[in-house]
Amino acid sequence: MRFDILTLFPEMFASPMGSSILKRGQETGAFEIALSNIRDFTDNPHRKVDDKPYGGGPGMVMMCEPVFRCFEHVAEQGPKPGRVLLMTPQGRQYDQKMAEELSREERVVIIAGRYEGFDERIRDGLGAEQVSIGDYVLTGGELPAMVVVDSVARLLEGVLGDEDSAKDESFSNGLLEYPHYTRPENYRGMTVPEVLLSGHHKNIEEWRREKSLERTKAVRPDLFEKYKDNSKYQENNREN
Amino acid sequence: MRFDILTLFPEMFASPMGSSILKRGQETGAFEIALSNIRDFTDNPHRKVDDKPYGGGPGMVMMCEPVFRCFEHVAEQGPKPGRVLLMTPQGRQYDQKMAEELSREERVVIIAGRYEGFDERIRDGLGAEQVSIGDYVLTGGELPAMVVVDSVARLLEGVLGDEDSAKDESFSNGLLEYPHYTRPENYRGMTVPEVLLSGHHKNIEEWRREKSLERTKAVRPDLFEKYKDNSKYQENNREN
Repeated sequence: MRFDILTLFPEMFASPMGSSILKRGQETGAFEIALSNIRDFTDNPHRKVDDKPYGGGPGMVMMCEPVFRCFEHVAEQGPKPGRVLLMTPQGRQYDQKMAEELSREERVVIIAGRYEGFDERIRDGLGAEQVSIGDYVLTGGELPAMVVVDSVARLLEGVLGDEDSAKDESFSNGLLEYPHYTRPENYRGMTVPEVLLSGHHKNIEEWRREKSLERTKAVRPDLFEKYKDNSKYQENNREN
Repeated sequence: MRFDILTLFPEMFASPMGSSILKRGQETGAFEIALSNIRDFTDNPHRKVDDKPYGGGPGMVMMCEPVFRCFEHVAEQGPKPGRVLLMTPQGRQYDQKMAEELSREERVVIIAGRYEGFDERIRDGLGAEQVSIGDYVLTGGELPAMVVVDSVARLLEGVLGDEDSAKDESFSNGLLEYPHYTRPENYRGMTVPEVLLSGHHKNIEEWRREKSLERTKAVRPDLFEKYKDNSKYQENNREN
């Protein structure tokens, strides 16, 4: 798989994308990351890539020309990009389902840049999907682009080792995960719940399910409501 | 302000935290980032920091001992940390409101590490808040820690330049931002909406508000519902 990232700060990607699991994934050929500097595609003598918004207001807006030209340069290299993402807090929310979809593409283009303002014609003209990693504002789209690459890459074959793979319970059933414990049994007087030491698989499973429900209800009532609705739906369908 | 980050991969932070706006913010003394390697705090001969979960199941769980010791070493340096965050998809959702809260602290400790599994006693014993940057799974807590630092740092005095500051409309009124346009007026046949060129401030404001509502309703029905509820509440209060 190939990720193309269009950015004003390609140097930001070096250390997170060159460490640990993502480094190994690129070395084994599971995926590659191609960085393009949007600033290389402007004819402006000051290499300007943004300007003031029409209609007034604070902040700067990313201009069409360098992004269009950079995109076209990148798109020509290799197979047609399957998806084009524009990282911005105005987008739809990125989630595990979208990570799974993207992991089935041969090529994904991610446009980073000023996180708050892109000229709207960039989205329209490039058929880009506006995507947000969460309801907070960042200095640029670079960290969001890294989040997308990381979450997708770890789903690709040959990226995670055996030790880590399959460990994808979070969000897969719509609930938060149950609490984890590892050695020692007693740490500074804090002990592991008895049931986890019992070896009784059915009880362990029940305890985990209960804790998972409790935690989701307490921390993420939004997910809990969705989960309840889905379970009801499934139950109704089973009855029919 | 001081960020302490406890991580297994301190080298991952170099390029994103050393570029652009965050670099400048550290140079001007607006904030500092202190990285500590959790692996330096284990007596295990193989520098092991994780182990299998009690009760079985896939994946590895981050052990108490190195995290507790690393945290205690860090906490001793300087003023008492105001907040301690544990980055994990099981946490409450990070948002702009929390970024604003954190920006008022003198010191914040962020614990990165295996994103899916911490020994539950780490949270209990350190009084840490579990925080998630979104509903997706990542290879580690490092990118989430960077997201927190970036979103908080940009709110600190002296980090953003004049050009960028005040540009915080996203989420501040509970709606997504309206579309932006900048020069040229006509780009490849795509034109800027007339109203934005009119100079008529009231019309511009109305257009933007309408577009902001439209977009939020289409892309983020969850935010739109919250917004409606809040407006109703405010209207009722005004009537009384």
